Parts: sequence; structure tokens; C-alpha cells
Amino acid sequence: RILEAIAAMLRDGPLRGRRVIVTSGPTHEPIDPVRYIANRSSGAQGAAIAEALRDLGAEVVFVTGPASAPRPAGVQVIEVETARQMLDAVMAALPADAAVFAAAVADWRVEALSGSKIKKDPGGRPPALALTENPDILRTVSRLEAGRPRLVVGFAAETDDVLANALAKRLRKGCDWIVANDVSPGTGVMGGAENAVTLITAEGAEDWPRASKAEVARRLAARIAERLTQDEAAP
Amino acid sequence: RILEAIAAMLRDGPLRGRRVIVTSGPTHEPIDPVRYIANRSSGAQGAAIAEALRDLGAEVVFVTGPASAPRPAGVQVIEVETARQMLDAVMAALPADAAVFAAAVADWRVEALSGSKIKKDPGGRPPALALTENPDILRTVSRLEAGRPRLVVGFAAETDDVLANALAKRLRKGCDWIVANDVSPGTGVMGGAENAVTLITAEGAEDWPRASKAEVARRLAARIAERLTQDEAAP
Repeated sequence: RILEAIAAMLRDGPLRGRRVIVTSGPTHEPIDPVRYIANRSSGAQGAAIAEALRDLGAEVVFVTGPASAPRPAGVQVIEVETARQMLDAVMAALPADAAVFAAAVADWRVEALSGSKIKKDPGGRPPALALTENPDILRTVSRLEAGRPRLVVGFAAETDDVLANALAKRLRKGCDWIVANDVSPGTGVMGGAENAVTLITAEGAEDWPRASKAEVARRLAARIAERLTQDEAAP
Repeated sequence: RILEAIAAMLRDGPLRGRRVIVTSGPTHEPIDPVRYIANRSSGAQGAAIAEALRDLGAEVVFVTGPASAPRPAGVQVIEVETARQMLDAVMAALPADAAVFAAAVADWRVEALSGSKIKKDPGGRPPALALTENPDILRTVSRLEAGRPRLVVGFAAETDDVLANALAKRLRKGCDWIVANDVSPGTGVMGGAENAVTLITAEGAEDWPRASKAEVARRLAARIAERLTQDEAAP
């Protein structure tokens, strides 16, 4: 890992001198001291994106929830558990040239976190789990008035109407791009080695061929590098 | 693993010829195709118990939820995800001489599993997560009229009033023994390498010294062997 870190520092590339935040993995939202709400994100796609950006010379801040995927080497790793911790870590990592929000952040958390393990009430009714909305990290960063990264990329993991939901999400959040994918159980994407994504930009939607998560990551990193350098070349 | 399995078959010991079911790990209860309710059980204590019983010559059926701990070698491993699947697997594994229910089975599941990823309704209220009680595996097996294992051991992972809750649990469930432990975050038991348990039997409560999970497992396995052989020695 030390050698990889040194290699990263010495690495030249189109993103040399650029700082990119990448979020990855699930978040865990506690119900009580032993139970929590989770999701099936393995963090594999986010880790691959961090590695691909690092390989193009970027300084990567990798903010990860409790993911099963190994942490990438040669990047700054910040471990968090909940959506609120992830937002705090992202805000603390700004300013950045770009931010890629690949984490599967829980939309909701439990409203009243119990300090004790919730007991089963014999013969009683199960507890109602009242939920409350989590902060929206993608929307918050996309709509920053000061210090917004030049390029903000969101992800839309959908099981139905993938394209329509992702197009709407891009406008609603105010981000520049959305990487949309179908995570229905039949696709094998969540927890799997491959991904099939559609990149949505202001110009339209591009279907990318199904490929390894590493290959999808390299393609996305190359597009990010192109975009950040184009911005500068423009008058 | 093959060598270990052969070693297990050849292994002599007080539990040779005895069949023991061990459950382990958390269960995951799906909310929709990507989200689920989980708990912090690593499955380390259950795996250690399976190994200790195997080492005393038992034929072990190891029914495990999605645990992070490695699966023990030389035992029959059955992987499940939900509480209902775990109950089915346990019932299918009967008859057995003893059953050790070390899994942290979810008390509740989501009443109406959504076939699609639940969408955040912009400006709307978060969904209410209506829960319903899961089958009680410990109680079901403890109260079997035909085919009940001679020795049924439950676990009580508590954060408050550990002893009182565990004593009440033993009577309510109808099991023979309860292994009670304090899983408050400060103890480091959940996910940690050590455990401090109290063994509750019809005769009373014994506090065991804090020890590695492997040591707690060996002690429990030795007690199980003692009990199963005593039964036979009795007139």
C-alpha cells in the first residue's frame, strides 16, 4: 500500500493536481444498539471509480460507508456509518474540483433511535418503525452557492423506469451528470462484478455497454478528466 | 477443508454419533429489492460453538444467516437469509440430539415487502415501515411435542437487565439453557473477539469469566457433552 501511495503521488495524468471526492458503499441507519437498516451496495463500483480517478492522477478523497469491498490504495479513506456522517465528511472534504456520489445513501433513518435493544412485547403489537428523511447529500452539494465542485455526478440505482427516474433525478437534484443503473435482483449488478449504466448529461442519455465495474469506472474517470480539462480550455 | 472433514469423521470424542444443530449470524429481513433490516451479529460465537462441538466428535448442522465470520470446516453448512428461511432449515435438519440457537434472529420483518425499490416522494411523508412478528425458532423447537432435541440451548443478547431478561426468556421459550450476554456497545462483544456470558439452567445462573469466543465455545460444548452423556447414564 505504501508503494501504491508513492506511485500515486508520482503519477502524472490529466487529473494531476485535481481533487475529487468519491462516496461509496451503503449507509447503515441504526434502529437500536444492535439493529440497523442497510442496503445491498457492496461498494465495488465506488471503489473502482476511486481507483480509476487515482490512476489519472487525481487526489481522491474516498468517503465510504460500511462496504464489503476492499478500500482502494493511494487515496484518502474516510469511514462513516450513517447518511448524516457521510454528509459531514463530504462537506469537510470540500473544496474539490469534482464529486462523484456513488454511495447508496439511505433515504430514511429511524426517527427515534432507541438507546436500548427494543424488546419483543409478548402478545403485543410489533413496534412501528417511524422513519424520517435523511439529508440529501447529492442535492446539498449540487445546490451549494459557494464552493460547489465544477462537476457533480450522482448515481440513480433503480428497479423500475430507470431512464425516466434518472432524468427526473438529475433535474431535481441539480447535479451535472447522473449514472443510472438497473439494480433489479435479476441483473446481478448489486454485489456483482459487472454493471450496465446509462450516463445522463445536459446533452442527453448514453447507454454504455455492460462491462466490468473497473471498465465502467475507467470510462467514467476518462469522461470526468475530459470535462474538467475542457472547462479550462474554453475561453 | 477436505482434510478437516476427514479428520472430523475419524475424530473420536464424547459427542461421537450425536447430531447437533447450531444456528449463527444475523438474519436479513428485506424491505424492498435493495434495502433490508440487519443486526450487528458477526456470527463469530456461533461458528466457534460449531467448531468446538465438531472437535468433540459431533455431527454438526450449521445453519447460518449472512454472517461475516468464516464458515467452520468439517460441518454441514446451510446458508439462509431471513428468519423464516432459518426456521425452515432448522425443521428440515431435525431430528437432532441437541440444538444451539446462537443466531441473532430478527424479531420482526417488514409486513408488506415491496417488489420495487421504494421511492422517496418529494415533499411527501416518509413511508411507515409496518413490522410483523417473525416465527420464534427457539420457542417452536423447545415446545415440539414430537422430535424435540433432548437439549435446547437459546441465547439472550441483551443491553439492559441481562439476568432478569434471560431468566424470563428461558421460561417463556421453554428451552433448557440460556446463554445470556450483554451486547451493549461499550462491551465490544458484538463484532469483537471476546464474550462474557452467564449460563442459565434449571439449577440457576453461572457467570463465566470473560474469555475468547473460542474458549466460551469450548466450555459450552463440554457442558453439552456432559449433559448428553449424563442423560444416558441415568437409570
